[in-house]
Order: sequence, then structure tokens, then C-alpha cells
Amino acid sequence: MKAKAFEAARALAVEQGLHNVTMPEIAKRAGVAPTSLYRRWGDVGSLLMEMAVERLNETFPLPDEGTLVADLTLWARRIAAGLNADTEVNFFHVLLATTAMSSETRHHVLAPRLEQLDAMLGRARLRGESAPEADSVIDHLIAPLYMRSVLGMPLDDRYADKLVRTLLETMTA
Amino acid sequence: MKAKAFEAARALAVEQGLHNVTMPEIAKRAGVAPTSLYRRWGDVGSLLMEMAVERLNETFPLPDEGTLVADLTLWARRIAAGLNADTEVNFFHVLLATTAMSSETRHHVLAPRLEQLDAMLGRARLRGESAPEADSVIDHLIAPLYMRSVLGMPLDDRYADKLVRTLLETMTA
Repeated sequence: MKAKAFEAARALAVEQGLHNVTMPEIAKRAGVAPTSLYRRWGDVGSLLMEMAVERLNETFPLPDEGTLVADLTLWARRIAAGLNADTEVNFFHVLLATTAMSSETRHHVLAPRLEQLDAMLGRARLRGESAPEADSVIDHLIAPLYMRSVLGMPLDDRYADKLVRTLLETMTA
Repeated sequence: MKAKAFEAARALAVEQGLHNVTMPEIAKRAGVAPTSLYRRWGDVGSLLMEMAVERLNETFPLPDEGTLVADLTLWARRIAAGLNADTEVNFFHVLLATTAMSSETRHHVLAPRLEQLDAMLGRARLRGESAPEADSVIDHLIAPLYMRSVLGMPLDDRYADKLVRTLLETMTA
């Protein structure tokens, strides 16, 4: 059911815009009962978010480049490039569009992505590197990239690299 | 014309949701020609953003508490409380809703708020305090607060205070 629901939701989002996708329409397009969608996801925001997180994890798994600074740099640059591209139904759009739709399950739906982040930081620690907490990475690397995009401010590799440096300095300060 | 247009836009946003507000409807409700709205704001996203920034500056001017740490702390706590409240057509909702609607004028529309921020940092420097750049305040104080809200993560005074400390430490690092 999940694959069918996600496929239907994605098609509807492309056709009608993310804000106009509803559970009954997804159910109809996917050929499943609306009740089973509500039972599994609770609301359309959670379904869309889970879809976006799954796609993000599959398309852009977090880097494993051998050092933490390389992992963070590659990740930050990829996010900057993705936010600049601004074309398709991407993770960021779903995140923004579902802010109003979604319930407290929101944080729960993000868990698979946070697990990838924890795994990346865990690999660094296993190599003997010191690594920040996942929350610090969100606060000082991911948040500024997204915020700049929302504010219409420029985003490039240099800025991404600067954020990585600041994050690693903050940790050792 | 501006006051009428903003009043009409706000009423429509409350009635129909931010995503469904259009320039022709604002014009009709305000009793002005749509062409004058397009000439002045370009698109509905810019109009809504300018409305939100004006209201934000009037309702919550940036603090002037006598020290930078007090100013930043009060501001961060206010943002955290506002994001938790999550009730009306607030700045954050407009910011998110207009991300897709708005053109490159976006950053320009935010200028009055950035001027308030620059003024607050300028007052600190005049008192002989060292103050971070406005961009750093956005990256490491404002962005994490907004991001946490978007991710459905908890926001409280303690977390706001911690961000202020990290920002001021980063500056001196």
C-alpha cells in the first residue's frame, strides 16, 4: 500500500500543487480505502513528509567520505545546490508545505533521516574524530541553509563551507 | 492604498488560508485596480511578505534592553513563544507560505526588519560591546528557532538562551 500511496501522492502534488493534495484523492488514485491511509498516517501532512523523507534517504543518503569534515561539506554543498535548483517536489517544499497540515507526529516521521545523521556522526567517532551532537548539526548547518533559502538570500559552496567550519569550531570552543 | 490592500489581504488570508489569496481578490476587496497592486508589489507573495514584515516591526520591534545579551535573549524567547503559539496569520506562516509565490524581490521586502536588526547591533557597538554581524544572528539564532519549529522539535526559553550563548561564543572564538 505504501508504494501505491506515495506514487499517487507524488503525482497529485505535481498536478495540483502540494497544498491541494488530500487524503481522499490519494486514496482514490491509489485504489485503496481512505480509512487505511488515515489509520497509517493520521493526516496528509504526515503521509507527504514520510514520502519526502523516504525519497531523500534513497536519492541522497548522507555521505560517507572517510572524514567528518568531508561528509559535512559534501552534505552542506548538496543542500545548497538543491535549494538553489528549486524545481521539483523536493524535500524542502514538502517540509514547508506540511508545516500547517501536520500533527505532532511530524518529528517522528523525520526519524529515518535523523538515524542517517546519527550514523554519520557515529562513524566519525569510531574513527576517533570528535563529532558534534546531531542537534547542533541541525541548528548550525542545516537550519542556516534552509533559512537563507526562505529569506531569498544567496547560497553557494563557499557559504556552505563556512557553516561547516563554524559548526566544527563551535564544538571545540 | 497600502493600508487598504494590507487590510484586504489579511482578511482574505484568515478566511481562505494564505495559499489561496490572489491579487485580483485583494484588489476587489480593497476597492483598487489590480494593475496598481501588480505595479507596486509585482506578485502576491511580495505583498503578503511586506504586510507581514510591517506588522512584525510594529507589533514586535526589536528589543532595546541596554545590553546585547539581554536584547538577543528577549528576542529569541519571543520568537520561541510565537512559534509555539502558532495561531494566527503570523510572520512565520507568511514566510513559509510565500516561499513558492515570491520572486527575487523577497530579500528586498525583508529590508525593514534587517534595518531594525542592524540598529540593535549598532546600539551594542556604540555602548562598546562587541556584536556579531547581522548574518551570523540570522544563521545561528533565528534559523535554528524557525527550523526547530518546522521540524516539530520542542522550543523553550532554555533552548533560546542556549542559542544566544552559542552565538556570542562563536563570535569570540
